[in-house]
Parts: sequence; structure tokens; C-alpha cells
Amino acid sequence: MLNPNSDAAMTAAVLTAARAVAAPDTIVSGRNPDTGPAAIESHVDEAFGEVAVARAVAASVDDGVDAYVIACFGDTGRDAARDLVDVPVVGMTEAALMNAALVAHRFTVITLPVRTIAMAERVVRHLGLEHRCTVRAIDLGVGELHDEAAQVAELMIAEALRALADDGAEAIVLGCAGLAGVAEAIGTACGVPVIDGVAAGIGLAESLVRQGLTTSSIGTHARVALPVDLR
Amino acid sequence: MLNPNSDAAMTAAVLTAARAVAAPDTIVSGRNPDTGPAAIESHVDEAFGEVAVARAVAASVDDGVDAYVIACFGDTGRDAARDLVDVPVVGMTEAALMNAALVAHRFTVITLPVRTIAMAERVVRHLGLEHRCTVRAIDLGVGELHDEAAQVAELMIAEALRALADDGAEAIVLGCAGLAGVAEAIGTACGVPVIDGVAAGIGLAESLVRQGLTTSSIGTHARVALPVDLR
Amino acid sequence: MLNPNSDAAMTAAVLTAARAVAAPDTIVSGRNPDTGPAAIESHVDEAFGEVAVARAVAASVDDGVDAYVIACFGDTGRDAARDLVDVPVVGMTEAALMNAALVAHRFTVITLPVRTIAMAERVVRHLGLEHRCTVRAIDLGVGELHDEAAQVAELMIAEALRALADDGAEAIVLGCAGLAGVAEAIGTACGVPVIDGVAAGIGLAESLVRQGLTTSSIGTHARVALPVDLR
Amino acid sequence: MLNPNSDAAMTAAVLTAARAVAAPDTIVSGRNPDTGPAAIESHVDEAFGEVAVARAVAASVDDGVDAYVIACFGDTGRDAARDLVDVPVVGMTEAALMNAALVAHRFTVITLPVRTIAMAERVVRHLGLEHRCTVRAIDLGVGELHDEAAQVAELMIAEALRALADDGAEAIVLGCAGLAGVAEAIGTACGVPVIDGVAAGIGLAESLVRQGLTTSSIGTHARVALPVDLR
Amino acid sequence: MLNPNSDAAMTAAVLTAARAVAAPDTIVSGRNPDTGPAAIESHVDEAFGEVAVARAVAASVDDGVDAYVIACFGDTGRDAARDLVDVPVVGMTEAALMNAALVAHRFTVITLPVRTIAMAERVVRHLGLEHRCTVRAIDLGVGELHDEAAQVAELMIAEALRALADDGAEAIVLGCAGLAGVAEAIGTACGVPVIDGVAAGIGLAESLVRQGLTTSSIGTHARVALPVDLR
Amino acid sequence: MLNPNSDAAMTAAVLTAARAVAAPDTIVSGRNPDTGPAAIESHVDEAFGEVAVARAVAASVDDGVDAYVIACFGDTGRDAARDLVDVPVVGMTEAALMNAALVAHRFTVITLPVRTIAMAERVVRHLGLEHRCTVRAIDLGVGELHDEAAQVAELMIAEALRALADDGAEAIVLGCAGLAGVAEAIGTACGVPVIDGVAAGIGLAESLVRQGLTTSSIGTHARVALPVDLR
Repeated sequence: MLNPNSDAAMTAAVLTAARAVAAPDTIVSGRNPDTGPAAIESHVDEAFGEVAVARAVAASVDDGVDAYVIACFGDTGRDAARDLVDVPVVGMTEAALMNAALVAHRFTVITLPVRTIAMAERVVRHLGLEHRCTVRAIDLGVGELHDEAAQVAELMIAEALRALADDGAEAIVLGCAGLAGVAEAIGTACGVPVIDGVAAGIGLAESLVRQGLTTSSIGTHARVALPVDLR
Repeated sequence: MLNPNSDAAMTAAVLTAARAVAAPDTIVSGRNPDTGPAAIESHVDEAFGEVAVARAVAASVDDGVDAYVIACFGDTGRDAARDLVDVPVVGMTEAALMNAALVAHRFTVITLPVRTIAMAERVVRHLGLEHRCTVRAIDLGVGELHDEAAQVAELMIAEALRALADDGAEAIVLGCAGLAGVAEAIGTACGVPVIDGVAAGIGLAESLVRQGLTTSSIGTHARVALPVDLR
Repeated sequence: MLNPNSDAAMTAAVLTAARAVAAPDTIVSGRNPDTGPAAIESHVDEAFGEVAVARAVAASVDDGVDAYVIACFGDTGRDAARDLVDVPVVGMTEAALMNAALVAHRFTVITLPVRTIAMAERVVRHLGLEHRCTVRAIDLGVGELHDEAAQVAELMIAEALRALADDGAEAIVLGCAGLAGVAEAIGTACGVPVIDGVAAGIGLAESLVRQGLTTSSIGTHARVALPVDLR
Repeated sequence: MLNPNSDAAMTAAVLTAARAVAAPDTIVSGRNPDTGPAAIESHVDEAFGEVAVARAVAASVDDGVDAYVIACFGDTGRDAARDLVDVPVVGMTEAALMNAALVAHRFTVITLPVRTIAMAERVVRHLGLEHRCTVRAIDLGVGELHDEAAQVAELMIAEALRALADDGAEAIVLGCAGLAGVAEAIGTACGVPVIDGVAAGIGLAESLVRQGLTTSSIGTHARVALPVDLR
Repeated sequence: MLNPNSDAAMTAAVLTAARAVAAPDTIVSGRNPDTGPAAIESHVDEAFGEVAVARAVAASVDDGVDAYVIACFGDTGRDAARDLVDVPVVGMTEAALMNAALVAHRFTVITLPVRTIAMAERVVRHLGLEHRCTVRAIDLGVGELHDEAAQVAELMIAEALRALADDGAEAIVLGCAGLAGVAEAIGTACGVPVIDGVAAGIGLAESLVRQGLTTSSIGTHARVALPVDLR
Repeated sequence: MLNPNSDAAMTAAVLTAARAVAAPDTIVSGRNPDTGPAAIESHVDEAFGEVAVARAVAASVDDGVDAYVIACFGDTGRDAARDLVDVPVVGMTEAALMNAALVAHRFTVITLPVRTIAMAERVVRHLGLEHRCTVRAIDLGVGELHDEAAQVAELMIAEALRALADDGAEAIVLGCAGLAGVAEAIGTACGVPVIDGVAAGIGLAESLVRQGLTTSSIGTHARVALPVDLR
């Protein structure tokens, strides 16, 4: 699990969520950079997060990692990681959207804060799911997740109910790696599936590994190395 | 594994392909109708295949099935199955396209025969992947797969090489449940990942089950029962 | 007129609506299956309806039919029918959307119940009219149409007025074969054209026949026969 | 039949084609401007053609016309005509594409000359049929149609065969009002339906009239009058 | 600056707006037809406006004009002008949308009256910006702009605030050449960039000239002459 | 001019190209990072380039810069730069595509090497120009531009001619900041406009400044600061 931000507490939470659904024979570990943004909320944060992901991949290249999951909504650094290694790299956002598309005809991502709507929509468009997926936001910073868990659930549920009524949503996608804790509350309140990309990402990574699939080595992601002076 | 056609040999081949990649704690079983089309090549075949899938799901509703995979390219009967049961239903075509999108930026489905291109494109459009996925066909009937395995590999490789050269494909998706046997030959000849939807479908089904996700029960797939007189 | 459900009263209503607009030299007849779902509201219903349509076409192949119209919103069985016969097959949904596109720049389908929105949108997307057409639903089962005609008109008018105000609709498409009776009330209340697909379908079928056009016999709908044991 | 160009011979040919498929109770008449471009090949031609159509509609407003068909590929002046009168206005291009979509899954317009591809694509996009329709051109001016009928058929057939082989076309749409004469030759040579928008347009106009449908009078085409000094 | 309507006061206002942002070495002049519609609000108006633009371009062909800007929302006559001359022709609507896309991720055009929404959307779709741009209208005729400037600002601000709240707009595009006067009031009230296409168009025209770029002379806009009898 | 790679020779070439078309009152300066990738060809390169752009913007925030142009095809770091400063930020790719859309109906980007096609398409899709723009590549690394100028022109011309013949292109967009030198050769050989994004970007930046437009400060690009420890 590659967390592109420097918040070790979020990495720990991500590992807990991932291990809860991993197959018995899967070993889940995680990494986050020591420095850099503590949350990925702006395009500036994303730039530093992408470099952090590239460096984490390069640093672990001899560790026998079978697959990577990008544990940040927006899939920060996913494409750079795919350039660097043969083993599969799964973005948690892609994974969440794919799972949602299997259990609901239409669904809604709820992200936070408003400025990240464009980043979620970028992944929706990367897959082409605009006709089945809307993106909404609650007006809260990622950093406020720790402090205000109760309020987060309340805000998410209110927004989810609007998605059901106004967008025809039949499932909800959590728009942040740090939201797994409120999934159950939303599901109970709204009566629809709630998808966490961390959990979805583990499953897709496991499946790609069992099939022996690796990132294509021609074209877009033909392998490159990270020069030593940039590591 | 729900095979909507009545070809028991194909069901057996599908089970072999599925078990080869299933997690250690997954039990894979399969069903196909006793009567009806032996291959799903036309919209007429699809109509009968959909009814067969609906009946197979209704007949197994007390068997403790954790998830279903539709083992036919085009995902025949997937939506009807989702209407009938809470547990996840994964189409092999959806699953293949999702896996392909994780290991390649652009990719090509190779189906057979030409008349099934529209069915593959229907699933591509259902997901919205038109901007990353093309569909090609080799001019062979599904029934000819058994007899002419060597020729199938040859035709598939030739078409795959055209996809790489002309469509910018970076991976190949096998456009039929009965093609798993030629995957390795294509991969070796073309140097790109080759995705089999049966294997991809098992992984997604396992993952949805581990996460406790079920098909949304509101809206498009709100549960219905199959009337006794239609079973 | 092919009604894929077993409701003979709806077939009769469809014939009345069709004959009201048919050209003087057109003979309109209809068929519905004896058994199967009495309304097409779920994907399970659609599967059985498609088989019923395929069988009805095969059974009438020597009757000198010049063209078929699928008299069910969602165009159940249209593609199977096109596989089976040379003469034109027109879906009432396609026909309604085409007529709407000729008399209004933007328009709205009002279907019933909510679960059928996805089926209407499937036809909208098949034609590519998403940029000009929205789909709404009133929360009523098809079976309730007989009993509650007055309430149906009231609900349809209320939804149509929302479509005009919120979607910029300039015309309304009736989203069910059984709604012709409320067309005039909606038109009077809303001041916009109201399109019934049954009537639209007859006109397109007549026109294709006069031009001598038949379904293309290459590619997607290359003719197949319905095997005797499936009739 | 409104011919926006001043070529009376083309108007006569259009009337012949229209009358050949009109219903027995339909009276077909036609108009073309006395002056202005003799063919609509450029956007400059289109501008003058649109004014000619608006004037022809205004001039015939008391003639008891039940419906208008724009007899020029590109549907020159269609939107202006819809602004002016309640009775239906059908573009021959729209009509041709709609008919093609009923008899083939994918199809190709063959227009002439190359500069008019963008005009044909404008109508394809107006309807949203990009995913099912390609546009090709033969390099010939509209004015050369009279002189070189034999060569036109030959060029059209060659281009149609390329459309079948390379675009997966299953039907051909004639991309000019003056091409009806070569329809049969193309159909015979290629074995697919060949659609002439003049014939298709008559049928749709008749059908709208029988249904009593008129252009919506709210929004985009809310009625305007042509000021006396512009007639 | 080509104003396709005959309102000389609007031409004067357009020139003022253009000169306010033109580079020091740019000479801005303008033209409008003596007769014809005083505002371009309907498709009938557009037809006459297109002819006026074509004639104005042909009449100025020896005047040493370096570039033309179409000063009417909807870019009336732009394509005809491009057919006629080598020097660049910039539509104010295209220009406004391009500028908006550089300073905001999502934005909204506010046009007047409601019937012109379809014309603005035509340009949005011509560029492909549907995923980032919505179109709204205030219910006012273009002719009312002179008389009711204060009310216009009020109505525009109210609509702009709805665009920010409901469409996620981050900038506003003025949907008429005559609205430059209210730009500042909207910007102050809403706190977002307000784009006037006249000003945007001048800048793009200047830039194309400095680069020596001219309209492509092959394909869609291959040069044609305006016949003497149509001038 | 912000060059995200560390190749000072390319920065110098970019400045030359920019100054050749800048308005008389425009002062053009440039920056590139001292370290990091010497060319932006992979997603890994892009990650480092984005950080370099963010740092360059933050470092120049007190320099009185009126607008930034990202001088790298793919617009590396554009969104991060927009987060950081009020003044306009123009990507050379966006600018090139916008200019191309004003002088041609369809056009083609020719990038190098093949792996960068996806990056060019990302910008094409960001604007929505897929229906008018194709992307091709010549198989050459950016680093080879210096050494093999003659060969580059030859390869570009050959690819441009294929774009004209096969894609209907009417103009060519140079897909790299280092290609300005071959523009004239391509234009002469192919007879169509050739657009260089560096020159296009300068013009759009100048125009936004003259209009007083700044990046919207709400939503997607609401201003953030670059923390001191990340500069």
C-alpha cells in the first residue's frame, strides 16, 4: 500500500482496512514518505505525492513486492509507478469505481474537500464512467478527518442521501483513503453498498497476481528506471 | 460459473481456467442448461441464454452460492441475474475489460465471429471504455474452437499483431470464454498481457465477497423473484 | 405489433393506437405470448420477453408480414427479431426518440417504474441522444395502469412539468406502450408535443416498407434461423 | 420538398424520388430559389441556402402545406424553417441516418466532395450517432453528377466497399440529394441496404402528420415571423 | 469586428470593448449590415446574419484586413467567412470558451433569451467542452439590453450565483456581444472571472496574426469565392 | 516560460521561439530546474517536472511575472502552478490545440516518442477535442532532437502526410517544445498550417493579461501556498 502523503496514521488506518479483506495468503505492508504534504488535496500536493510514490517504488524494487496499491483517492503517482515496475499497480480510485460498477448501475463518489472534485472526475473520465457516476464533495479538509469522525459520518450520510435522491445513485464510493471508518454508518443509514477503494484495490491486486498479469511493457508504460540522483 | 450455452465441454474448460487462478479457499462450481443454443453467437442465442442464466440462478438460490460469474463473452444474462439475488454477479467481459484497463492504457478485444463485435462493443460502452478499447474479430464460429485449436491461435496472433500496429493496443482481451487455451501462445508471440475474462471474473467475485458487497437493492436491480411457472 | 408480455388487453390497446395513425393501405395485426410476464419491468422480464418475440417472429415467418414493430418500451427482443427475418423490425422506443428529435431540440422520456430508467437510457445511448434526452420515472408499476388511469395522467403531467422546468425539455416521450391514453391530457396541460412510440413505430415501419429497405444481412444481424426445438 | 439550391433539375429529380415512395394519399410538391448557389458545397453556399429555405417557407405559409422536407444533404435551413411554422420540418440527412440506424448497426455516409464531410458529420453529431456512423467522400463536385453518372456509380461503389471492409459498415447512406439514381447499383454491387434521405424524409414527414405532431413551440424553436422586408 | 446584426449601436459598443484590450499596434475596425435583423436570436436571424458576414468579408477583401472576429454569440457566419479568406477568422464564442478553459476548470455561459441556449451549446459541442461548461439563460431579449442595463446586471448576477452553487462553475462567460458593460458588476458580486468573447477574440486574432497562421486551405474550408451576383 | 526539464538548451530555443511572436511590449523570460530529467518522456519524468514547475512558480512569486507559459508538451505542472498564483498559467499544449481549432476543422498532433501519445491525448481529452484531433508519434526520443534535426523533419513530414491522407487532418500540431525549428519545413512540404504551442501560448498569455483575467480562486484551483520546507 503506497500512501503518497506523509501521514503515518493514515497509512496505519489503510493497512488495517486492507488486511481486513485480504486473502489468507496475502501479506500487506505499507509505505509513506517521511516528508512532504500530510494530505493530498491540491495539485501541488499531488506533484510531491507522485514523486514520493515513484521513489517508494524504486526503493522497494528488490523487496519482492508482488503488486502495489496506490492508497490515495485520485490515484496519485499510479502512472509513474507503472512506468517503473513490471508487477501490477492498482489505483484505489480505479478499483473503487470498478467495484461500484459491478454492484450498482449508477453511483456517486463523495470526496472532500470541494477542490478535489476535479481529481475524482479525472479518474472517472480515465475509465469513461461519466454516464454512470457523479462526484460530490463535503466541505471538510482531509486533515479534519481525525478530529471530527462523528461529524464526518453525519455530513457523508446527508450528501449520500442527496446523491440517491437527485443523481439516482444506487451505491456510494468513499472519496478518500481515510474514510473506511464511516462506511458502515453510511450503508446502514442509506441502505446501499458503500465501496472503499483500499479494500477494492487489494482484491484487484491479488487477482492480477494470481493470473500472472503484469503491466504492459510496450507503449505508454514501457519500463524506465529512476535515475540514481533522483531517488 | 454460469455458462449460458448448453455446451458442457465449454463449462468444463471454464471451470479448469477458473480453478487455476482461484484463491485457496474458493470453491468453484459451474452450471449450463441442458438444452438451448450450444454457443451464444446471435441475439437469438442471447435471448435463450439469458433465460437459462435466470433459471440457473433461481435454481441455485438455496445452494449457498457466494457469487456468480457469467462465463460467456457479452455477459449474457448478467442483468437478469442481478435482479434475482443479493450476492454479487460478475460478467466475464466486464471483468476482463477492468483487468485490461489496469495493465494497459489501450487494449483490444478479439472476438469471434464478426457478428459478435456489436455484443462486445455493448459491454465496452456499458463501462465507457471506448476511448481505450477497440474490438476486432476473427472469422470463425465458436463451435469451430474445439476442432481447430492450432488455427485459432494462428488467427488470433495475426489479429493481435494488427491491433498492436494499427490500434495502439498494449494488451489483448480474449473475446470468448473458450479461448483460455490460446492465451499463452498469443502472449508469447506478441509480448503483451493477454486477459481471460473467466480468470478475471473469479478474482473480482472473490474480492466482492471478501468485502461483503452485494448488488444494490434499490433502483435498477431492486430484487424480483422468478415466478414458479417460469422456472 | 409484437407485444413481448402476455397482457392481451395491452396488445388490444396497442392495436387501437397503431390503427389510429396507420396509412389507409396498412393492415395492422398483433401478437403476444400466452404465458410469461404480464409486464416487462425487470431484466428477468426482458429475458422472457425476448424469447417470446423471437418465437413470435419465427411463427409468423410465412404470414406475409411486411414489417414488425416491437410494442414495448425498451424495444425488448428487437435485435433477436432482426437476426431472424429480412423485413424491417422497428422498436417503439427508437421510433419515439427519432420522432421527438424531429419536433424538439431537447426532450424527456417519462417511464414507469423507477427500475426501468436504465432500460430507457439503454435505448437513448444506443442512438446516442444523451445530449438531447433525459429520462424520468413516476413510481408506479405497469400493472397499475389499468386501474388508475386518472392518477397516471396526474403523475405524468407533474413529472412532465418538472422536465420542462429543470431539463429544458421541449417535448415528452411516453415511456410505456400502455400510455397512449394519457397523451392528450399531457399535451394539453404542458403545451408541448407528446410522442407515443407505438404510433411513431407504425410510421417508420410503413416508410421502410415503401422504400423496399430490409435489415442488412451482413455483420451484426446476418440472418440465423430459430432451431425447431426452440420454437 | 425544399431544395435550397437553384438547380431546378435537381428539384425535379428529388420530386421523382419522393413520389416513388410517397403514400397514395400524399401530394408531393417542391420549390427551389430562382437565384443563389446551384449546389450547396461550402458554408457560403449554406448561408444563402438557409435564407432561401426561410423565404420559401414564409412564402408558402398559406398554401396548406402539411410538412416540409429539406432536400439537401446537411439539412440546410432546417432550424430556420422550424422557427417559422408549426407543421413538421424533416431534414433529409436526419431522416436518412434514422432509417439507416433501423436496418443496420453500423453504417457509412458517402458524400461529395471532401469539403462536405464536416457538414455531414455535423448532422451525425446533432443526432449523436458517431459511434455507429462514419462519413466518407468521393472527390467529385455536386455539379459533376449530371455529366458523369456512370463514373459516380463506380466511385460510390468503390468507396462503399472500403466502408464495408474498413469501417464495418452494414449499410450505405447516400450523401447528396442528387444520388438516388445510383442507389440500386450500389446495393447490387455491395449487397447492403442503400438509404436515400429524400425517400426517408417523405416517410417521416407523412408519419408526423398522421400523428398530428408539430414542432414544439417552446424553447429552441418558439415561433418567429419572417419580417416583411426580409422576404 | 464583424457584427452580423444591423444594430450599429452594438457595433460601436463592441469596438469600444475590443479597443480596450487590443495590443498597442492593433487597429480595430468594425462592420455591420445596413439591413437585416437587429439582433440574432433565432435560427432565421442566424441565416440572414451568415449572409451578412459573408458579404462583409467579400466586400473587405482588398482592405488589408489581417484577421476577422465574429462579434456575435453563436459565432454566426464564422464557417462561411473561413471559406472566403486566408486570414484568420475567430468566433467570439469559441474565443470566450477557450479563455474560460484557461482560468477555470468548470464554467457557465449565461445567454439571453432561452431560445439561444441551443446556439451556445452548439459552439460548446463544436469544441467538445460539454464536460466543463454548462449553458444557462436569463429570460430577456437582446433588444432589451439597451433599455434595462440595471436589470440585466441583476438578472445575470442571480443566474451566475446559481451556476456557482448548482453547476460548480468557477467562471462566467457572457453569452452576448452586448454584455461587456455588466462584466465588472458580475465579477464583483460573484468573485469569479467573467469572460467577454469580444475581448477574448481580439487576443486570439492578434496572436494568430503574429504567428503568421492562416485558415487551412485544404478540406473543410478550402477557399471559395463569393459569386459577384450574390455580393 | 517554464521548462520543466533541466535542458537549458531547450529553454533557450523556447525563448527564441516565444520572442519571435511576442507583442512589442512583452518581456519574455524563462526558467528550468538545475537538476531532474533532461526531457519529459515518461510519467516519472512528469512527476519530477511538476515539482520543478511548482518550485519555479513559488520562487518567482515576487518577480512581478504577469503570466506563465508551461513550455513542455503535456502541460507538465500546469494545474499545480494554477493552484499557487493568481496570474494566468497557460499550457503550451492547450494553447496549440486551441489555435489549431481556429484554423482547421480537424488536425493532428505529432509527438515523440510513442510512449507520449497518452500524454498528448490526456490534454486533447481535457479540452474535449477528440472528435477533431488525432495524435500520432514518430519513434524518436526527445534527446535525439539536437543531433538529428534533418532526420526529424523528414520523419515529421512523412507522418504529417499520413495524417492528411488517413485522418483528414487539415493542420499539424508540433508535439514537443523543441520542434519549432521544423515547423516551416513541414508547412512547406504539406501545405497546411503548422502550430507550435510555445508561440500559441505566448499569445494566449498576453491576451489574458490585457483582459485582466486571473485563474479562478474558488473550487479546483483555490489558492494554496507551497510550504517553505518543500521549496
